[in-house]
Amino acid sequence: MNSGDYSQLRSRSVDSIRQAIRRNEYRGHTAGLAPGFLQANVVILPESYALDFMRYCQRNPKPCPLVGVSETGDPILRTLGAEIDIRTDVPSYCVYREGELSETLPDIKALWSDDMVAFALGCSFTFENALIEAGIPIWHIDNDRTVPMYRSGIMTVAAGGFGGEMVVTMRAIDAERVDDASRISRRFPLAHGGPVHIGDPLAIGIADLQLPDWGDVPPPVGNQVPVFWACGVTPQQALMHARLPVSISHQPGRMLITDIDEQAEVPILQDASKLSIRDAMSSKA
Amino acid sequence: MNSGDYSQLRSRSVDSIRQAIRRNEYRGHTAGLAPGFLQANVVILPESYALDFMRYCQRNPKPCPLVGVSETGDPILRTLGAEIDIRTDVPSYCVYREGELSETLPDIKALWSDDMVAFALGCSFTFENALIEAGIPIWHIDNDRTVPMYRSGIMTVAAGGFGGEMVVTMRAIDAERVDDASRISRRFPLAHGGPVHIGDPLAIGIADLQLPDWGDVPPPVGNQVPVFWACGVTPQQALMHARLPVSISHQPGRMLITDIDEQAEVPILQDASKLSIRDAMSSKA
Repeated sequence: MNSGDYSQLRSRSVDSIRQAIRRNEYRGHTAGLAPGFLQANVVILPESYALDFMRYCQRNPKPCPLVGVSETGDPILRTLGAEIDIRTDVPSYCVYREGELSETLPDIKALWSDDMVAFALGCSFTFENALIEAGIPIWHIDNDRTVPMYRSGIMTVAAGGFGGEMVVTMRAIDAERVDDASRISRRFPLAHGGPVHIGDPLAIGIADLQLPDWGDVPPPVGNQVPVFWACGVTPQQALMHARLPVSISHQPGRMLITDIDEQAEVPILQDASKLSIRDAMSSKA
Repeated sequence: MNSGDYSQLRSRSVDSIRQAIRRNEYRGHTAGLAPGFLQANVVILPESYALDFMRYCQRNPKPCPLVGVSETGDPILRTLGAEIDIRTDVPSYCVYREGELSETLPDIKALWSDDMVAFALGCSFTFENALIEAGIPIWHIDNDRTVPMYRSGIMTVAAGGFGGEMVVTMRAIDAERVDDASRISRRFPLAHGGPVHIGDPLAIGIADLQLPDWGDVPPPVGNQVPVFWACGVTPQQALMHARLPVSISHQPGRMLITDIDEQAEVPILQDASKLSIRDAMSSKA
């Protein structure tokens, strides 16, 4: 199976898709796969940087909405699924050394070590699905392209060595639906929330919408309004900014697929064993 | 000024109230003070426990919604206000040693050290204000009491030594407004979000609503429905559960008052200097 087998995966269950990815049978993008399940951006780094990275996420919740954090050295993301192994369950990984992309890999079994911490961060698929359900068309989905992404002039709030510019995505929306798109996306704080900017690209330092830094070139916006959301590529830029000896992310668009309902208020696997009813009477005695 | 001077503070500005607290002129509860500004629960602990505590908050976002985290050793909470000093700006502090409450103090200038990290967590005042605006009466506010709090049988998801039972608050709501109360509170994920349980208290291990573990005894619910939300006292219980050599919290009900709009989507002080528009043309060249 290769990236061309995407269409075949679309009808498979989340477990089956994850198995195919784990066996390195599929290394392509995950948009549209396992509909209804939360997908996540991934960051992996040594524990000595983990506290500063969590501070960075807390201070920049729109680009970096944390949905899961592993124990140090434990590759299993226990709150996001029954058996998600972060070493193998992402279609393709980017490895950064001293702030530069050094390689892409189908798994990171050889790189994972006892001092690593894995982070999962929410992605835009969740709110895009909600926009489509509300009858707001999304160009890049209707045309099987990748959303255009831009390095903006909005600076993130730094923490430790993590910082730099916010990466944003752009979706052109009919003027009369912009308020709806804002309101709907704001309902999903774990999927980047509401827009960070509406209208003139230059106001956030973007000179030409036809020159995205990542993703596909969109058609001219015409009479539509360009609406900008924080993008999950921002933490990858922050990783490079921090120039860690080694860090790892997913390859953009090739996300971790979790077992969590993408509409869940809290992205934590509900485990029946967590509800242990005490003998309330005796504890009051 | 003492706790009796609460009514006098109600008409003062957020800066003026904070100054009174900083000078130890006011050590009482903060409900109803500085309306419109986000108030926060506070946890302070040594950096060596900070990563586990942040994991605990991420895994239990309803009781522990993080709204701010200090740098290690820096007592100024820079993302929450112009000059909030966590050593002095809470009306009253609880100090825990080896998991036991050891003292309450008007400030912690003598306890703060270079390895301390301060955390601010959202509180229920925000969603209570929204419920009242929607015409849903809240008994403890209408009667100047403290909301009843109960140690429930719902276990939090552990991280490191942090764990234990979730503390919940109860508000009795007319049956026909329960859905509204759920929907409205869910809009405030940084203020405990939607209810964790609706109805039978025994289902979450609470035997008698007339025997709260903290707060005031409510009247019998009668024809109303008991609705339970996660409570910011939970992280204090988790602190005791972890039996740290030393840790600090605010005294319940005596919160940190921030400069953040309580309706803000992101609880980060917007600093104009953060928006630095690059010369976008040259960066594209």
